[in-house]
Amino acid sequence: MPDTVVLTEDALDVAAVSAAVGADEAGAISLFVGTTRCSFEGRRVVTLEYEAYAPMAEREMEKLCAAARHTWPDIVAVAVHHRLGLVPVGQASVVVAVSSPHRKDAIGASRPSPPPAVDLRSRDVR
Amino acid sequence: MPDTVVLTEDALDVAAVSAAVGADEAGAISLFVGTTRCSFEGRRVVTLEYEAYAPMAEREMEKLCAAARHTWPDIVAVAVHHRLGLVPVGQASVVVAVSSPHRKDAIGASRPSPPPAVDLRSRDVR
Repeated sequence: MPDTVVLTEDALDVAAVSAAVGADEAGAISLFVGTTRCSFEGRRVVTLEYEAYAPMAEREMEKLCAAARHTWPDIVAVAVHHRLGLVPVGQASVVVAVSSPHRKDAIGASRPSPPPAVDLRSRDVR
Repeated sequence: MPDTVVLTEDALDVAAVSAAVGADEAGAISLFVGTTRCSFEGRRVVTLEYEAYAPMAEREMEKLCAAARHTWPDIVAVAVHHRLGLVPVGQASVVVAVSSPHRKDAIGASRPSPPPAVDLRSRDVR
């Protein structure tokens, strides 16, 4: 199955990212969801803002998918959805999903680093 | 937040399990989805069937949640939803979700063992 990489200003849909890697030959799906936390270094966070140059960010995200497949060749599918713009407290900025026949590959491969081409532009702390 | 343990004969809803552990103080949610794979030991699988004595299974699942919190005290919330009865190929039999302020706790705690009180009753292979 081809990898799926999405950059969007819309709210992320965990079920859709999970479904994007679902396959009859997969026995396991592992997902990581990064969310905006309400505090940072003791101050109250209201929102985070992410920005990216989309073509470059998408290429970097595709490279991360390829690297995961290189390390975990039994992977069936990888999907990475990253939100851009303002992400309020409690909402997801990134969802990574990996499927594989057996759980160890999906679990091992779904420990994300944030796609390096997506930058945290600002943190609204009060 | 209290842990959430659900046994159901209905299809599992990954987004609902994720939402069950969402919290303003969480920066990470890690999920594991176990699905019915289309083959087992070289034979085609059509469906799996799970059965449990619900009160005992729920107690065992609650113990697993408590054990995860003991190992990873920074956990914000844990949710485990297990399907009973027939689970066709491609569909989820179990969804585990863990949230925490930082990713290492959620990721570390969401590596599941199947709840021992839920048994694989039959594997329809052809």
